[in-house]
Amino acid sequence: MRIHVINPNSTATMTHTIAQAARAAASPGTKIDAETGTNTPASIEGYRDEAMAVPAMLQAIIAAEARGADAHVIACFDDPGLAAAREVAKGPVIGICQAALQVAMTLAARFSVITTLPRSVPVIEDLVRAYGAGHHCRKVRAVNLPVLALDTDPATARARLLAETRLAIEQDGAEAIVLGCAGMADLCSWLSHTVGIPVIDGVTAATKLAEAMAGAGYLTSKTGAYAYPRDKSADKMTGAA
Amino acid sequence: MRIHVINPNSTATMTHTIAQAARAAASPGTKIDAETGTNTPASIEGYRDEAMAVPAMLQAIIAAEARGADAHVIACFDDPGLAAAREVAKGPVIGICQAALQVAMTLAARFSVITTLPRSVPVIEDLVRAYGAGHHCRKVRAVNLPVLALDTDPATARARLLAETRLAIEQDGAEAIVLGCAGMADLCSWLSHTVGIPVIDGVTAATKLAEAMAGAGYLTSKTGAYAYPRDKSADKMTGAA
Amino acid sequence: MRIHVINPNSTATMTHTIAQAARAAASPGTKIDAETGTNTPASIEGYRDEAMAVPAMLQAIIAAEARGADAHVIACFDDPGLAAAREVAKGPVIGICQAALQVAMTLAARFSVITTLPRSVPVIEDLVRAYGAGHHCRKVRAVNLPVLALDTDPATARARLLAETRLAIEQDGAEAIVLGCAGMADLCSWLSHTVGIPVIDGVTAATKLAEAMAGAGYLTSKTGAYAYPRDKSADKMTGAA
Amino acid sequence: MRIHVINPNSTATMTHTIAQAARAAASPGTKIDAETGTNTPASIEGYRDEAMAVPAMLQAIIAAEARGADAHVIACFDDPGLAAAREVAKGPVIGICQAALQVAMTLAARFSVITTLPRSVPVIEDLVRAYGAGHHCRKVRAVNLPVLALDTDPATARARLLAETRLAIEQDGAEAIVLGCAGMADLCSWLSHTVGIPVIDGVTAATKLAEAMAGAGYLTSKTGAYAYPRDKSADKMTGAA
Amino acid sequence: MRIHVINPNSTATMTHTIAQAARAAASPGTKIDAETGTNTPASIEGYRDEAMAVPAMLQAIIAAEARGADAHVIACFDDPGLAAAREVAKGPVIGICQAALQVAMTLAARFSVITTLPRSVPVIEDLVRAYGAGHHCRKVRAVNLPVLALDTDPATARARLLAETRLAIEQDGAEAIVLGCAGMADLCSWLSHTVGIPVIDGVTAATKLAEAMAGAGYLTSKTGAYAYPRDKSADKMTGAA
Amino acid sequence: MRIHVINPNSTATMTHTIAQAARAAASPGTKIDAETGTNTPASIEGYRDEAMAVPAMLQAIIAAEARGADAHVIACFDDPGLAAAREVAKGPVIGICQAALQVAMTLAARFSVITTLPRSVPVIEDLVRAYGAGHHCRKVRAVNLPVLALDTDPATARARLLAETRLAIEQDGAEAIVLGCAGMADLCSWLSHTVGIPVIDGVTAATKLAEAMAGAGYLTSKTGAYAYPRDKSADKMTGAA
Repeated sequence: MRIHVINPNSTATMTHTIAQAARAAASPGTKIDAETGTNTPASIEGYRDEAMAVPAMLQAIIAAEARGADAHVIACFDDPGLAAAREVAKGPVIGICQAALQVAMTLAARFSVITTLPRSVPVIEDLVRAYGAGHHCRKVRAVNLPVLALDTDPATARARLLAETRLAIEQDGAEAIVLGCAGMADLCSWLSHTVGIPVIDGVTAATKLAEAMAGAGYLTSKTGAYAYPRDKSADKMTGAA
Repeated sequence: MRIHVINPNSTATMTHTIAQAARAAASPGTKIDAETGTNTPASIEGYRDEAMAVPAMLQAIIAAEARGADAHVIACFDDPGLAAAREVAKGPVIGICQAALQVAMTLAARFSVITTLPRSVPVIEDLVRAYGAGHHCRKVRAVNLPVLALDTDPATARARLLAETRLAIEQDGAEAIVLGCAGMADLCSWLSHTVGIPVIDGVTAATKLAEAMAGAGYLTSKTGAYAYPRDKSADKMTGAA
Repeated sequence: MRIHVINPNSTATMTHTIAQAARAAASPGTKIDAETGTNTPASIEGYRDEAMAVPAMLQAIIAAEARGADAHVIACFDDPGLAAAREVAKGPVIGICQAALQVAMTLAARFSVITTLPRSVPVIEDLVRAYGAGHHCRKVRAVNLPVLALDTDPATARARLLAETRLAIEQDGAEAIVLGCAGMADLCSWLSHTVGIPVIDGVTAATKLAEAMAGAGYLTSKTGAYAYPRDKSADKMTGAA
Repeated sequence: MRIHVINPNSTATMTHTIAQAARAAASPGTKIDAETGTNTPASIEGYRDEAMAVPAMLQAIIAAEARGADAHVIACFDDPGLAAAREVAKGPVIGICQAALQVAMTLAARFSVITTLPRSVPVIEDLVRAYGAGHHCRKVRAVNLPVLALDTDPATARARLLAETRLAIEQDGAEAIVLGCAGMADLCSWLSHTVGIPVIDGVTAATKLAEAMAGAGYLTSKTGAYAYPRDKSADKMTGAA
Repeated sequence: MRIHVINPNSTATMTHTIAQAARAAASPGTKIDAETGTNTPASIEGYRDEAMAVPAMLQAIIAAEARGADAHVIACFDDPGLAAAREVAKGPVIGICQAALQVAMTLAARFSVITTLPRSVPVIEDLVRAYGAGHHCRKVRAVNLPVLALDTDPATARARLLAETRLAIEQDGAEAIVLGCAGMADLCSWLSHTVGIPVIDGVTAATKLAEAMAGAGYLTSKTGAYAYPRDKSADKMTGAA
Repeated sequence: MRIHVINPNSTATMTHTIAQAARAAASPGTKIDAETGTNTPASIEGYRDEAMAVPAMLQAIIAAEARGADAHVIACFDDPGLAAAREVAKGPVIGICQAALQVAMTLAARFSVITTLPRSVPVIEDLVRAYGAGHHCRKVRAVNLPVLALDTDPATARARLLAETRLAIEQDGAEAIVLGCAGMADLCSWLSHTVGIPVIDGVTAATKLAEAMAGAGYLTSKTGAYAYPRDKSADKMTGAA
């Protein structure tokens, strides 16, 4: 089985962290095909960054499918372009936010999400609601560090993530924690052992769900909202329908 | 890996159908440990049936975990006792309704569910809403056959299921179909090929998600709502806290 | 009129507290038929306890109806088995949680619930939402005492309940308080007088609503979700429908 | 016990129908104090009618309380001025719409409402949602007759109500019917016997709930949204707070 | 263009503040026709005040339309009688709460509302939800001053409004502030400059939206819920339909 | 005042229709600066088309603001890139879908939307819900014609739009109609006159709201979710925060 993991941003060190998490999660027979965005923002910190990363990501998905990908993982917690990716792909497309929330709802009755910058809080809150996890997610919190600082200042990142996790447990009654950034994947195991409750990294969650979906032979519906994009070449002629 | 699949009702032929679907879905290294309910109703067709099936099911889950189960699948579409099962289990517990809905939300923007008896429609609607799929599920439909008739009158079952599926596609705009009964598992592939859109059987979906969850090493949170049941032996003495 | 009040747990002292509250609330002509669960958990503190208490409770409801009960009160704030009870009963079945919330929504625009253990908070939150009170209930709080400690350590229970009520008034803007455990029934009057806002005990609320429903001659609908459980004896033969 | 029943409109024949239903529902010791609106619209068919009926209704509530009313019933299915009435009253105030929905949610998992004019459908839908019954109410239907035609053209009213009820059962899967107009109170028993499922008249429901609330000694919260209206005489001086 | 601005309460100084804000917002060709309520409460601080102000307000709207008003602004943040006003008016009717929330949702992803008295908090929360802004509004806060104190004690009003705004920014993550009282209109510009985020006064917002709606030629739908009130004179005769 | 109207697709004839509608709606002093997308899809019919159109649209918005635009209208009913546009713009950004829904909720209690292709129905349903109009919108319907057929086959477009509108009025109880495609702008007046209820074209609605917002001096919040995109150049160095 071949799982295509696309990091929509252009930072290769972050792709490395993501690929490591995906490979650690993957079953023996699974090949992880990890890619970095081409000419996309260095990190996804808001709606504009998302928008600028999606066109290249869609091309990468089409190309990966052509070279044999059975399923796709979008490795950014904002799930940029998830619906568009489902339109262009035949195989299942898994967003790490949606995957992490599905796992969290299975393991715990209530959880909190911890992301990087405060500006991402409303973005993620809206995803939580759209994915139907609104009544299970206690709070979306932020450590107030840029995405890339997870890599350049790991000590601060760990300290703030641990502090925010403890607040989530004490103040929110969180029974599990969802890491709200693909770049936090390498902190998952450490954090879970430190605080003693499940911590869910979206890259791991999405990799396993992608394997599960592809393993079951599931394909994206090609009727309705996720049908392939239409060829409009005939539309400009009279009477097209 | 060892996946425990419990059919909460007491009909062994239905367990057979379920076990076949689970084994067909399972990865090579996975052992399916399928069980039938002991002294439980012959089928689960309403809240009372659910209630009467759960105590034995919880014992089965505890016993299966003692003999090495890594994860559990509750193979009844009402997900009876799902939260209680998560309380007594260490490993992840997957309900086939919740699993099927998570898969459906990944493959399609809109879907419909087709179940057996009309009395189960509100039961399933409430699950759909509780699991956060309310805005994605167009309609819960019923073929108006008892659960056991899927086995005793397969021709009628197939005919009605196909007719209802066509209504779901035409009237609801369903882009995928969720089979709303574990006993329909063997009709999934036929139906999907006949109508040309994804059809999701909960047993298959749950088996794959159980493998994914166990494969990632996820465990049910033991803090909060899913903590192990309390030992109350000390509570009747003064000052217990 | 005869109101059947079932305490689903097996602690007779708690049934005593419940029966006292029900009798104090009942109209002159009403007979309270109070029962303790048989071989059920000593207290209901989570989903497993609920599940283990329901089968005996359903038998008790059927038996009480046979001896003339006009309506039933399930005297546990988790409303365990409420829908199943409605399936087996002809008369109305009132859950103390649903009753208390209906009263609270009539008396106040915003209220908070105070229960025993933190693990019950998500359980009650989900009921609040399912019963349509989500936008009226400010918060579900817990005094962090086991159910049985209400009886064995009443001084601590009173102190913590009062403290939590004051937080609900100051921090939540609660205009009324709902007591989130049947075992708190005897603290209702004291607490209301102490803080000067309505305090609603579910046993009292449910007893009065049961009298009202039975007095109006209302019966549970036997069409659809609450129809009597089906006799499945014919289902295993070919062609059953 | 003394229950004040106010018909907010000015049609005395309708008050007569309402009073009969309330008296038929009342317990032996209960006195029904039924009143007609003074200088209010002849029927309440929309928001303007509601608005024009409420000031007189509030005065009637204050006066009734002065002469000993223990609780109040607003006998119009739009529940006009319900929150305002709770502000001016010490005792509980029951709206017949809210009461009927609470009863319906107790007796059935799914129900439909049938009202008079189509213009009232959105009015009632918004109440259903505000009262938390949105996921239990299948549909709000209208017989397309003015309120007063229930009295002047009873044959047509019965025929259309029966036809619409049958549609609700067949198309909506309604397990119970809520009558969406106080003027339908006298059709409740006939309709229920004809179709064989519970039919809920708001006047009956509200009278019984008012008795229950008053019997329990419940009073409207005087903290927060339902506190008595403020005396503003001091506000125009500097520094008022 | 002629915009009718009705202050439903009877305090002329407050109408003066409102009219100033409306005129400051209006385009050159727009005439603001500002009115004070006749024999209505001195301020609107709860449901009873609303109810007592609406009948006169509806007459004012009808009269204003007769003298040429193109659109109407209800200048009280509770939007009293908004639906009733739409029934009697031909032109668009804008409530300042709904208008302010529409503007807020356009300018910011998350905002908080700050009103006068705590008793108005649930009133406004329910409007926020009814207008579909529930997931965008972080919190409804109160400065705990009567409406008229905005005029009689402006120093305290400013101090408390600023303090509450700072809490909204720090604790709620508010990206914009909505002023929850028409009497705060003159504080809008000062507050926005002081805190550096958008502050939205409903009078300004509603005046601009009224101009926009009238400018586009939009008229209130006269089909369904906002149809003109019915003439019931024929209803009391047999057979009316 | 200068309103920038961007048609995100690359079809100039459609921009022409849009610009005509915007200019017809604009006040005398307003200059409409209408643009066609550069190298974007010929029409926006799904998520991929949206994604491919947004980067160029963001550049157009930045450029328009540099040349003096006071506000922006995104003239595609899917509101592609609306949040991203708010991030890069200082002035208000109006999506024609959000604008049309805000107008519809002001003019009518219930409305339906009519769009082009069935695949756009879930897209628009999700917007309706996200914008808080879910309980006011009866149904999203489709005429089953490609976007460009509005131009190439106007007779069929008119016929189908009228037929679907009549269904919306009869079956949905729609009190107003929202046109669900920018390319339908020129059909608005004709349709409204034909069916006699308000018909809302998003281009007109958005142009008027853009004028209103700019006229009031409103600016997009630059705190939180809509803050300008971050400069990440320093993030790759150690210790960035």
